[in-house]
Amino acid sequence: MKALQNLFDRIVQRVNINLRELDFDVKPYITIQIPLDQLRKFYAFYGITPFHPLDFQFRQSNLAGSYFLGKCRTTNSILYKSDIRGDELKKKGDVYNYQNFQIKLTEDEGIRIEDSLLIKTLVHCFSHDPETLEDFFITNTLAMHYANIHGAPIDGSFLGPFATVDLTTMNDCVIGAFSYVQAGEVGHLNIEPGTIWVRSPGQFDFLYCHPKEELRRYIHFEAGQAPRGLLIDFVDERKDEFQRLFEKVNLEPVAVPDSASLDRFALIKPKMVIGENVLVAQRAYLENSYMGKGANAQENCYIINSRLEGNNVTAHGGKIIEADLQPNVFVGCNSFLRGRADSRLSIGKECVIMPHTIIDSDQPVSIPDGHLVWGLNTSQADIEDNSVPLETLAQVKDSLQIGAMYFEGDGGAFVTGFQGRIHHILEANGAFFDGMANSGHAQKNQKISFNMIQPYPDGDQEGMYPTINIQP
Amino acid sequence: MKALQNLFDRIVQRVNINLRELDFDVKPYITIQIPLDQLRKFYAFYGITPFHPLDFQFRQSNLAGSYFLGKCRTTNSILYKSDIRGDELKKKGDVYNYQNFQIKLTEDEGIRIEDSLLIKTLVHCFSHDPETLEDFFITNTLAMHYANIHGAPIDGSFLGPFATVDLTTMNDCVIGAFSYVQAGEVGHLNIEPGTIWVRSPGQFDFLYCHPKEELRRYIHFEAGQAPRGLLIDFVDERKDEFQRLFEKVNLEPVAVPDSASLDRFALIKPKMVIGENVLVAQRAYLENSYMGKGANAQENCYIINSRLEGNNVTAHGGKIIEADLQPNVFVGCNSFLRGRADSRLSIGKECVIMPHTIIDSDQPVSIPDGHLVWGLNTSQADIEDNSVPLETLAQVKDSLQIGAMYFEGDGGAFVTGFQGRIHHILEANGAFFDGMANSGHAQKNQKISFNMIQPYPDGDQEGMYPTINIQP
Repeated sequence: MKALQNLFDRIVQRVNINLRELDFDVKPYITIQIPLDQLRKFYAFYGITPFHPLDFQFRQSNLAGSYFLGKCRTTNSILYKSDIRGDELKKKGDVYNYQNFQIKLTEDEGIRIEDSLLIKTLVHCFSHDPETLEDFFITNTLAMHYANIHGAPIDGSFLGPFATVDLTTMNDCVIGAFSYVQAGEVGHLNIEPGTIWVRSPGQFDFLYCHPKEELRRYIHFEAGQAPRGLLIDFVDERKDEFQRLFEKVNLEPVAVPDSASLDRFALIKPKMVIGENVLVAQRAYLENSYMGKGANAQENCYIINSRLEGNNVTAHGGKIIEADLQPNVFVGCNSFLRGRADSRLSIGKECVIMPHTIIDSDQPVSIPDGHLVWGLNTSQADIEDNSVPLETLAQVKDSLQIGAMYFEGDGGAFVTGFQGRIHHILEANGAFFDGMANSGHAQKNQKISFNMIQPYPDGDQEGMYPTINIQP
Repeated sequence: MKALQNLFDRIVQRVNINLRELDFDVKPYITIQIPLDQLRKFYAFYGITPFHPLDFQFRQSNLAGSYFLGKCRTTNSILYKSDIRGDELKKKGDVYNYQNFQIKLTEDEGIRIEDSLLIKTLVHCFSHDPETLEDFFITNTLAMHYANIHGAPIDGSFLGPFATVDLTTMNDCVIGAFSYVQAGEVGHLNIEPGTIWVRSPGQFDFLYCHPKEELRRYIHFEAGQAPRGLLIDFVDERKDEFQRLFEKVNLEPVAVPDSASLDRFALIKPKMVIGENVLVAQRAYLENSYMGKGANAQENCYIINSRLEGNNVTAHGGKIIEADLQPNVFVGCNSFLRGRADSRLSIGKECVIMPHTIIDSDQPVSIPDGHLVWGLNTSQADIEDNSVPLETLAQVKDSLQIGAMYFEGDGGAFVTGFQGRIHHILEANGAFFDGMANSGHAQKNQKISFNMIQPYPDGDQEGMYPTINIQP
């Protein structure tokens, strides 16, 4: 495993060089996380469909347990049980509108991962950076468990567990555990754990910080230790159940409507009802729940003992337990929404649950229609401090403070932007398919074949994958 | 499946162009054999080890159920459940001695398969043609069920079911069912079914033809029909049992001595005893038998209720049922040796059972030590007509006729050549491993990881594999 050890050391060094200004050493955070001999135990897999352009290139990398779809090149990197989804990449000839620029793509966009180490990380979407529209790059970067890199090219950065970067171009930053950053172009920042920051330069700025002590109960990460807390326990308690999905080459498909798709690597437990146009992505965990027409469950979602009435987005890593969601509720990534069997959580139609929101109450909690919700909520009273009707927010012209949330700028632009994005997500996922038109992932992912690749089993190259090129 | 249909048509046309002089149309032989929709159902797989040079390239091909090890490039071809073993290819710098020539290889040898269709075919070894030492090619060729292409570059030819070409370079030939040809360089021949022909130009010539009517009971193949007969029934009755090997990504290994290896795609049924230095290759079927030290079971072998005392070679497709083999017995490829529970077949030490020999008797049959055996034998009396002591044959200077067998030339060269080759096979397979030195396939194949690839699942390219390149 000499080559793999060298690769690991090299990545750590490169990230540290990038973070020298922040005086941040990633080594004590990463060293104990993945014993190298684990890295040769899991196969990687990639999907082939008639719909997704093919261009895989894997070089000098370990890909243990990782999944790839769409154009993706990985060099000198370690990807451990990560999902790299290039199914919304832009294509040659597409025109991207940014401010007053209309930018035409000169070639197909591809995801490029170099000199990086990703653990159980979700990579999705496309580069929103007008400077690098063809190249969705992740370089010199280290991302910890259940981080999301969403439409966000990134260089020289460290993402803590459950951190998300979204529609951001990031250079030499440290993003703390459970922080969510959607901020355009940023560099050389050290973002504290539990920070929720949504900024559209010149338009608005939304900022909330989870209360430090209370957040520790859910997620806590410090040098020399594995991530801890209720969120980690929750996923760890269920991880063995996924094993059977990975043992067989092909599984008997679970019957769903013709217009819906369950990923072959999703875990479907008894008493699920799956409606039309539903999309269930790989590594989702569904149990005893109702997914109404056009609902979706993205990667690393858990939906348990819940009812989603339709057109509900549950973004990457969202968790919904003992809850009832009216139509068109959006649940942002890595949110943790947990009612109890005898005191359920109820969310009204068209609510927007901000990414990285926690609602975890042993008393009933009810959220009225059309509200924006954020923060850490353990009771109905907390919701009062951490929510606002979307209509109210849309009228803000200047600033708004509620509890620990600070908003500045154009509330209308924020609400319209969010709603537009939710509409786009539903559309891309195939929620509006009418049997002929408007097909999306739910329909296009039905016909997919998986290829399983493994590393060298022994010798100096043990754990390294050979060079693999896949073209049409 | 448009592309796959075009590919099929193109291959058939190319083979027919090559065989125009023989006025042989392959189409009625092949068309019903593999319904195209079967060709998308099975994954292909390739092995990666620290010992075998890596160079896979798959282009414009269907590879359903086929296995690859070592350097191999496949273009415009259909390989259905075939085994392509490049684990004895020559390496750059090797020196190949041929007559008075000492030929140094300028690059690693590779297997190249182009414009060909192989069904359940075994490809192994390396090019023995001094003209093409770096290029083991199979082009414009169609090989039917359980054909063996062994060290034999081949162009523009048709091999019937259970046909073998061995150490031969073949151009524009038709080789009938169950024929074995080891003949140096040949072209434009139409070899009748059941022909056993071993020739070393200038040294010797061995010729035997199976009796036509009797052979029909075992294998029979005519235009417009699937191959039929006892050999086909025998393998078909057991084929479903292999299915469980292909369902899981990784199987729990069966315990064997440290110096032995069982391929992960071999079927091991109860009450097997596996000795030191034993090699069991993929798609071998072993049941209730004893494999003594250094014995091997190559691809498509069946060893059932039998005892092999040690250093026994069972070449590709050999079948041994209710039999006792003393040490150092060689059983040539595609032989069918069947005793009965109450009247076993007994073979003395150092016997050589020629390739494509049938011994199938419901009375006990016993073959003394050191005999060469060939032909179709259903009783002890047949053996008398179809065998000779190796010592006797070694003394032949001119010619020898026994029953329907004709031998011309130097008997000593024939015997010495055969024995040298058996020694080489044992050596290459690791039979002589002493814990340190003399390792071979039995030891080198222990550490292997398998990669599973699948074709496009839908659309015009349905059933075609994408372009795949694998390098170190």
